[in-house]
Amino acid sequence: MSLYLFDLIGVGVFAVSGALAAGRRRLDLIGVVVAAAATAVGGGTIRDVLLDRRPIFWLTDARYLVVIIVASIATMLYVRWARVPGITLDVADALGLALFTVTGAQVAERAGMPAITCVLLGTMSGAAGGVIRDVLLAQVPHVLQRGSLYATAAIVGATFYLVLINLGMSPGVASLAGMACVAALRLAAIVWRLELPAFEVPPDES
Amino acid sequence: MSLYLFDLIGVGVFAVSGALAAGRRRLDLIGVVVAAAATAVGGGTIRDVLLDRRPIFWLTDARYLVVIIVASIATMLYVRWARVPGITLDVADALGLALFTVTGAQVAERAGMPAITCVLLGTMSGAAGGVIRDVLLAQVPHVLQRGSLYATAAIVGATFYLVLINLGMSPGVASLAGMACVAALRLAAIVWRLELPAFEVPPDES
Amino acid sequence: MSLYLFDLIGVGVFAVSGALAAGRRRLDLIGVVVAAAATAVGGGTIRDVLLDRRPIFWLTDARYLVVIIVASIATMLYVRWARVPGITLDVADALGLALFTVTGAQVAERAGMPAITCVLLGTMSGAAGGVIRDVLLAQVPHVLQRGSLYATAAIVGATFYLVLINLGMSPGVASLAGMACVAALRLAAIVWRLELPAFEVPPDES
Repeated sequence: MSLYLFDLIGVGVFAVSGALAAGRRRLDLIGVVVAAAATAVGGGTIRDVLLDRRPIFWLTDARYLVVIIVASIATMLYVRWARVPGITLDVADALGLALFTVTGAQVAERAGMPAITCVLLGTMSGAAGGVIRDVLLAQVPHVLQRGSLYATAAIVGATFYLVLINLGMSPGVASLAGMACVAALRLAAIVWRLELPAFEVPPDES
Repeated sequence: MSLYLFDLIGVGVFAVSGALAAGRRRLDLIGVVVAAAATAVGGGTIRDVLLDRRPIFWLTDARYLVVIIVASIATMLYVRWARVPGITLDVADALGLALFTVTGAQVAERAGMPAITCVLLGTMSGAAGGVIRDVLLAQVPHVLQRGSLYATAAIVGATFYLVLINLGMSPGVASLAGMACVAALRLAAIVWRLELPAFEVPPDES
Repeated sequence: MSLYLFDLIGVGVFAVSGALAAGRRRLDLIGVVVAAAATAVGGGTIRDVLLDRRPIFWLTDARYLVVIIVASIATMLYVRWARVPGITLDVADALGLALFTVTGAQVAERAGMPAITCVLLGTMSGAAGGVIRDVLLAQVPHVLQRGSLYATAAIVGATFYLVLINLGMSPGVASLAGMACVAALRLAAIVWRLELPAFEVPPDES
């Protein structure tokens, strides 16, 4: 029950993040809600389609779409009146990433997937919504570009969760530890501007 | 049976619209057919994958692909000889949008989805094909941008259809009323240049 | 068993091709692996989701992801030390395209799909991974653009395979003939710069 509540909060946070990103591309109101929805439920939808989990979580429970619509509209109203402090959003987004990544890895693990698939599906649950949003906005997804260890934080945290589970830790404690790991790594990357090296093929090659 | 005929016509109209859009990006012949097919069956495919309706409608009935290929080739031949009157295409596209939106909402409703999901899946059935086409052409989807109430017309019409069904109207009459609503609103938006307000975050924020 | 080995080799080759393409867009290490994975298993995943073949092949067999990760990292290390001869990659990529196209058409045929659907799903199995990669890199997919008969080679080879099967040839021989057809056409197009005509709508039209 409280996990369900967290899930709705995560969806709301990601919707705010998607709406703000859309606000830089001059979409209309519907476009903003679509970008917010893609960010909020895109990752979980891909996870459920790949694993054939039915029904897709947000189809039969109308609350997810209601939260997305309310969060999008609230965001659009809010930015007319006040500045959005970037750090608030970063923290909220990091918590959403942590929540969706670990629950995604858990879903895959309970479906009997091998460990590497659990890490990948966890990471996709957390990060693929932002990828879909960026594709819709016709830009190279931020997650794939240099900077901020977004997917990296998810991969490390999902791996940490799986290691703890395999060491016999209870799912509740392992989940919290995995989420703390994702959020801490992501926020540390923002604060200290950590990043992975970029890879570049010299133009005259290949 | 006549619904099936309408469905094939809708696919053909959307294929023409997709082929014309592709013609602005210098694709080759295969690229044009792909863009036409994505426009024509993309929305219905997403709907069926999300609802797990199997088999996907165009996989087992070869006529859909035949119609798409014929419509694409006919479009490419036609534009070599004559101008395409924009208004003809707009009217045809509005009818396609109306048809796919309402039949999509109907499919979701009969699968027992909540009303908000029916409106969303109806709108996706009508509009997501164009979104996929625009993503393939590396541009921000027109549907999400300011102007012309494309998705809005679908949302209003799908909602109207569901209200009528819940008031006890027969599905046939409610469908026609919903389709008329989508087409009228879309065409009115084109004629009088109606649009939703855009949402824009000032660059210095967030 | 040896088909499985070919399959893993095809995935590895496509991963190298995806990693090299990603190297032109300054992604970080994770971004490169994601682009490689999308190229390598994107087409087969779309095929399996459309046909509802479960589980998706790379979810339950960890070797696919391991091959992708190893191939991506090896590519990134290799290009620091040496030039990649373009022709090597082209040949490898043509073999991957040939393999995935014909096995994709075979899967669709055994699922009882009509011939035109088999050709389309075979072509998607071979070429859609590259489309997803290009969409992630925010560029119009190469497959859809003028030049090199990429999708065309797949379509011709898949059709050739189906004709041979319907003439009563054994699946093994028909597969090899279909693959040879794809690879030969694709390599001939590279060597002699063959291409399909482009289609362009004059700007003042429609």
